[in-house]
Order: sequence, then structure tokens, then C-alpha cells
Amino acid sequence: MDKSALITQIKQKKSFLCIGLDVDLSKIPTYLLEKNDPVFEFNKQIIDATHHLTVAYKPNTAFYEAYGIKGWEALKKTIDYINKNHPEIFTIADAKRGDIGNTSTRYAKAFFEDLNFDSITVAPYMGRDSVEPFLAFKNKTTILLALTSNKGGLDFQGLETKTGEVYKEVLKTALTWKNAQNLMFVVGATKPEHFSEIRKIVPNHFLLVPGVGAQGGNLQEVCKYGLTKDCGLLINSSRSIIYAGNDTRFAEKAQQEALKIQQEMEILLDENN
Amino acid sequence: MDKSALITQIKQKKSFLCIGLDVDLSKIPTYLLEKNDPVFEFNKQIIDATHHLTVAYKPNTAFYEAYGIKGWEALKKTIDYINKNHPEIFTIADAKRGDIGNTSTRYAKAFFEDLNFDSITVAPYMGRDSVEPFLAFKNKTTILLALTSNKGGLDFQGLETKTGEVYKEVLKTALTWKNAQNLMFVVGATKPEHFSEIRKIVPNHFLLVPGVGAQGGNLQEVCKYGLTKDCGLLINSSRSIIYAGNDTRFAEKAQQEALKIQQEMEILLDENN
Repeated sequence: MDKSALITQIKQKKSFLCIGLDVDLSKIPTYLLEKNDPVFEFNKQIIDATHHLTVAYKPNTAFYEAYGIKGWEALKKTIDYINKNHPEIFTIADAKRGDIGNTSTRYAKAFFEDLNFDSITVAPYMGRDSVEPFLAFKNKTTILLALTSNKGGLDFQGLETKTGEVYKEVLKTALTWKNAQNLMFVVGATKPEHFSEIRKIVPNHFLLVPGVGAQGGNLQEVCKYGLTKDCGLLINSSRSIIYAGNDTRFAEKAQQEALKIQQEMEILLDENN
Repeated sequence: MDKSALITQIKQKKSFLCIGLDVDLSKIPTYLLEKNDPVFEFNKQIIDATHHLTVAYKPNTAFYEAYGIKGWEALKKTIDYINKNHPEIFTIADAKRGDIGNTSTRYAKAFFEDLNFDSITVAPYMGRDSVEPFLAFKNKTTILLALTSNKGGLDFQGLETKTGEVYKEVLKTALTWKNAQNLMFVVGATKPEHFSEIRKIVPNHFLLVPGVGAQGGNLQEVCKYGLTKDCGLLINSSRSIIYAGNDTRFAEKAQQEALKIQQEMEILLDENN
């Protein structure tokens, strides 16, 4: 999927919501545990109930790897289900991969070709030749970690260098890489005051913003500094949507939560235009 | 496996070699492609031929993920085969994972419990709470990327901060984390001149050193600055060993290459004591 298709979708759905499919068997309704593939069954119901309110789904691979081969099967079934039934949706493998050149190409093939995700999150620590292999794929997006929403995020991302904090160097440097137009950046919502400075460096790139909802980030604050004329934001919410309910009506509860956020987004998009 | 068991193994085998099991179907002998699981078959023969010369095996997960669910099955069979037949061997999942706290715990469970690796490589970019969940596992080792051997390694790792380059900050800071005794560090062999400075910061921790062999690093240079009284080094070689041959005798050729390195290591260990 290219950027313009994502923007079209945002305009149609009046939403820039991304739902994180981070399935934890200890948190899903217990009746699902009797199913053949509880993880996929859970995802399928969430997707069926929310696909018109969200523009992206983001499974975090850790939650699937934790269930071994069965987990990978559930991940594959989930992405296949989305691609088949809702091809307009932008899919994100939240994998935070990154390795030396040839090896990054392997990861890119795994997620872009074998699983057919539209995008993958990538860690920048190993530099240019660890990221460019992902950027080389046409119509695929590489979402580079810049400023993360967790407590330790600033341990190294916030270190002052001669020309600014490390995360700013990551943003600036990544823009010089080949196919930088295929980049998005992860910027955590828990630090909205950083958004205006980040927008000075990357005025047009999309930002994937985790941390709204369960992690305490504020949607309006983020939009105030982060929105561009093309929206330019994907706001991720995982737990507060997918675990809104815990019984047979969990998907309906998830839909209600997603709708609340979509309605808030609709107002913010209207104000932005 | 704890550190003392690894040191015992190094003394017994007079080796501190780690063999990278990075299996590429386009590089293995073609007759193996007819087997039911060519990746595992290749690994099994390499392991049978080299286990007495090496103290560690390190499959890079990218090479397995690239083959989808079959790849994960091959990875599981490989680690199970090592753990069953050569339980003295130190196993490394070269996965370069790292995510926010709860999610890192999932990765740790996937690799330490489900797959039962002794260790995993972890990227430091997200800071303390992305790494400590790995460190919390008893008798398991977390191998943190510090200075990597690839061309772009210095893009961010080499940025000057007020108190030293980023990779030195990673080393210093990681030592303050809970269960820091469970850490090793990745330090690339292509920059041996950095080893003496690194040893000032981490005088006793084991270093996992890729980049000897195909990537051009020099074993003697690395040892000159990197060896400790307990050895303190694991030198990884992948391609130059496992692809030494390309016919039915590939395992024998791999053994010959491993033996050459082991003999060089034996001399270096003798000189060190």
C-alpha cells in the first residue's frame, strides 16, 4: 500500500486509529480458550467489529512468538484474514527488527513477502545498512523507532549529542537514507511536548504514535502539534480497545471504545481542515 | 546455563568459538533440498561435525523467519537437537529483540522458555525497562548490542555525547541495571582498536564478537585487547565455517574450518595463562 491509499482511507473513515492486536491468552474471554485457535478467533471478532473505525491493525510479534509455532500460525491467519477481507487496511508488523544488511533483507522478506504486511517497525541502533534493506521494498513502509513511549525510552534516545538528542539525530539521519520516502517514525504519545520539535525535522512523514489510552497519552495534545495537512498521524491503541470487555460481548465493547476514539478523531480532522 | 559452566566448557574444549547457524537455502548443498526439512538437516550435520570444537551455536532468527512457519519448526528442531545431544553447548538466539516492559517479557518467554535458549541478543535503543525483563531470568544470559560490526554501526552508536560515544553510554548504563551480572555485550571484531577502551568499562563481562572471518575481523587483534583471565570472549563465525564446502562433504569441510580456528584459539588461550 502506498501513502496516498492510506490518506484516502483516513479521509473516508474519518479516522487515524490503529488497533494493536496484542493478544494475551490470560486476558481474553475464557470461552474462547476452548476454540481451536483462540488467538485468531479473538482477532477475527475484533476485526469484524472494528474494521470500519480503524485504518490500521498492528499485531506485536512478541505476543505471537510467545506461543511458539501455534502463535506464528495465528499471526499468519490474522494477516491473511485482514488482507482478504479488508484490503484497504494498513497492516503493521510491530516487530522492532534490525540486523546487518543481508540479514535485515531476510526479515524484510519474512514480513513484506511471506506474511504480506504493509509495514514493519524497525530499531535504528545498527544504523543505515540495517534499515535500508527494508526501505528497498516498493509500496512497503518502514516504521523506524525514534522516541518511544516507555519509561526507559530516554535512557539512550534522550542522550545529548553535539547537535541534539539521539532521537533527533535518528530522525535527521534517516531522512538522508535511500528511499527515505518509505519511512514513518514511532513517536510516543507520553511526551506530546516533543511533537512540535519533531515536526520541525520531519514535517510531512507519518508518525505512528503509541501510548494513547492505557499508557496515559492525550490525543488532543498529540494532534495539536503532530497533525499535518494529510493527517500524518496513526494513533495506536491496544489494550483499552481490545480488552474493553471480557465476556461473549467483548467485540461489541471493543467497537464502542473504537467508536469513541474515531468520533474524537473526526472532530480533530474537521478542525484541522 | 551459568557463566561458570561456560568457562568450564571453554577450558575443556580449548575453544571460545561460536558457530552462527545462518542457513540460507540458496547456499547449502543442493542434495539437501530434497530432504523433508533441509534447514534442520543442514544444521544437524554441522552440529554433529563441530560440537567438540565450538562452545556455542548461534542461529540468527531472521534466517528462520524468512521461511515462515517451516522456518520456526526448523529453529525449534535445531535447538532441541542441541539441548538433547550436546547440553554443554551455550545456545544464543540472535534475535536482536527489544520492546516495552511487558512485551519484552513475552520475547524472553518465547526464547528462554518455549525454545529453551541459554541466551538472546537484545537491542538497547528502548532503554532499561526494555532489557531488564530479559535479565530477570535466572541462568539465562542477555547479550546486549553495544558496538556492532556493520558499516552503519557507528551512525548512532558512535555519536559523541557529553560523556563518551553512545555505545560506551550503553555499556556504562547497562551495568547499573538489575541483574547486570546476566549481561554479555556484542562488540564487533572489525574495530579491534575499540576493545581496550571497552575493557576499561566492562573488565569482566563476556563479549560476543561477530565479524571474524567473512566480515574481515582479526582474531589475534581482538584477543590482544579483549581476553580476560576467564577468557571473556565468544568469537562468532558463520559463513566461513558453515559454507566452507558445498557438496556431500560440507560438514567435513566445516569441521576443518572450525578446527583451524579452534587450534588458533588454543594457542591464544595458552599464551593468556
